[in-house]
Amino acid sequence: MFVCTGYAAKTSQSPVAPFTFERRDPGPSDVRIEILYCGVCHSDIHQARDEWHNTVYPCVPGHEIVGRVTAVGAEVEGFKPGDLAGVGCMVDSCRVCASCREGLEQYCEQGFVATYNGEDKHGRGITYGGYSRAIVVDQSFVLRIPPNLDLAAVAPLLCAGITTYSPLRHWKVGPGQRVGIVGLGGLGHMGVKFARAFGAQVVLFTTSKNKVEDGYRLGAHEVVLSKDPAAMAKEANRFDFILDAVAADHDINEYLGLLKRDGVLVQVGAPEKPLPVAVFSLIFKRRNFAGSLIGGIRETQEMLDFCGEHGVTSDIEMIRMDEINEAYERMIRSDVKYRFVIDMASLPSG
Amino acid sequence: MFVCTGYAAKTSQSPVAPFTFERRDPGPSDVRIEILYCGVCHSDIHQARDEWHNTVYPCVPGHEIVGRVTAVGAEVEGFKPGDLAGVGCMVDSCRVCASCREGLEQYCEQGFVATYNGEDKHGRGITYGGYSRAIVVDQSFVLRIPPNLDLAAVAPLLCAGITTYSPLRHWKVGPGQRVGIVGLGGLGHMGVKFARAFGAQVVLFTTSKNKVEDGYRLGAHEVVLSKDPAAMAKEANRFDFILDAVAADHDINEYLGLLKRDGVLVQVGAPEKPLPVAVFSLIFKRRNFAGSLIGGIRETQEMLDFCGEHGVTSDIEMIRMDEINEAYERMIRSDVKYRFVIDMASLPSG
Repeated sequence: MFVCTGYAAKTSQSPVAPFTFERRDPGPSDVRIEILYCGVCHSDIHQARDEWHNTVYPCVPGHEIVGRVTAVGAEVEGFKPGDLAGVGCMVDSCRVCASCREGLEQYCEQGFVATYNGEDKHGRGITYGGYSRAIVVDQSFVLRIPPNLDLAAVAPLLCAGITTYSPLRHWKVGPGQRVGIVGLGGLGHMGVKFARAFGAQVVLFTTSKNKVEDGYRLGAHEVVLSKDPAAMAKEANRFDFILDAVAADHDINEYLGLLKRDGVLVQVGAPEKPLPVAVFSLIFKRRNFAGSLIGGIRETQEMLDFCGEHGVTSDIEMIRMDEINEAYERMIRSDVKYRFVIDMASLPSG
Repeated sequence: MFVCTGYAAKTSQSPVAPFTFERRDPGPSDVRIEILYCGVCHSDIHQARDEWHNTVYPCVPGHEIVGRVTAVGAEVEGFKPGDLAGVGCMVDSCRVCASCREGLEQYCEQGFVATYNGEDKHGRGITYGGYSRAIVVDQSFVLRIPPNLDLAAVAPLLCAGITTYSPLRHWKVGPGQRVGIVGLGGLGHMGVKFARAFGAQVVLFTTSKNKVEDGYRLGAHEVVLSKDPAAMAKEANRFDFILDAVAADHDINEYLGLLKRDGVLVQVGAPEKPLPVAVFSLIFKRRNFAGSLIGGIRETQEMLDFCGEHGVTSDIEMIRMDEINEAYERMIRSDVKYRFVIDMASLPSG
């Protein structure tokens, strides 16, 4: 075991604050990574504040992790000390169910082991995430990072990136398609970039006038203010695919109505309450409403390689570790363009 | 023009009662059919009683029509006097939009012309349906009826049949798949028969203990009482495809939870109010919730030919025309096995 410094929420009411804990030494198939940057996902807030009612405290959030390998176990292939490496939302899974065997560990029938607040397979208790100095992860769940990208801006690819990349690939978004992205936040801005990179005609839907310009800059061909009923009416029945990245309560039927026959709306933002769906809208155009969860390890690697080839990264604002609580408040106000990333050099040495 | 007798609702409050009206003489591409049998669809009740708030009175319901050709226009090919013929939910469409050109007239971008309460392309007013002596329909919307089937039991195939056949085909239901059918009524009992005929493992979900035996007789491999939480829990994550034929308000999340990863639940019953959908259930298994509307003319013919080859028909209860109002009341109580069909020989001659 080794001592590791980090930041944790001690209770649902307390701020995220310095915390020292132990991590396992690398086993034969483990990779130890010194964390350089960690992205801040909205899930971090939900978990730190127990908004999903399953948090075990203390809770060390963070699942958009990039860093440098400092040690590897004897059986590790593909990583050596000094390499860049990444860790996303998962650090393990059952590896034997149908989903795991297909490389879709995110749908593991036993439930994957989450990078934080997951049931730790290695001994005691709960997993601790990326708001920390270092992490030890089985090689099967460690990603290779393309060397040509801004490393801090790669971190959000490990969750926001793959969460949007995966459904766009699964539903074969590409040239000749009109594709909507709903909401310009951490997920949405990656959705715009990927849909554009895949050759689709990209339309961003946003509630904020002050995000219009950014929408175009990030790659949207058109930006529609979703609060403008006339603008929305013009888009009816025009979309092959819509990626809805809004986690707040919103009227999904407004967007289902924009789909062509056989169009698909995929929800990646996860509103807490059930969304009322007007079934007639599905029936009369054979429309599909679906969900999608992050992506498998193989696809995450494919996404990172794609980003390396096409120069795709996240738009980020760098923060110090001790600014995390303020960052949470700003995220809740949607005041971030478009992902906070913690510079781990700012973590007090422990 | 010729005078035609039938039955119509005169107001949303009045019973369906005798009504005499005019129909056009067959034009060059028209087929005139003497109606022998007409199935009674739940839509007939909704329209007769203006429950969809769009009924034009008087309203002659009926869109599960089979009969015998008595005259054809000069340009008609494929039908001659004496032939059996059928008409379903549509009597025309724009014929030029993408959906029409693909043979998916039910999704016509201009809206198809409904068999009754549709905007009549031939002159004045509204279309009148199958609760009548005869009907005149463009040849492109007339179906050929296999000669080897019980004709009365064919009538419901024109709506209940194609409405279940089409989604089972579209989503490629077949051998090796576990398929759920929700609700044993006019649609559901056809869903069971088709899913079984396509080689799937068929599980019927019903709220009624007294339908269990029928479920097996109609072809289900298993019947689950949906009010039994333990029985439902055993089915979680097991289904490739579920066809939900329940139009009453019900908890769709109970059934979404039965789907495997990438499973599809298709709603063909159309509840009036939006159904609350738990988005997490879609996200965590990449599940799909979709709708489907009847089927195109080409596919309806394919379905009828399939039924001829495989001996598939509807289970019916024959009624006289003057029993229609009582039949409506029984249908509302789900007291029909499984479709009423009107014997048009019982219509008073006019």
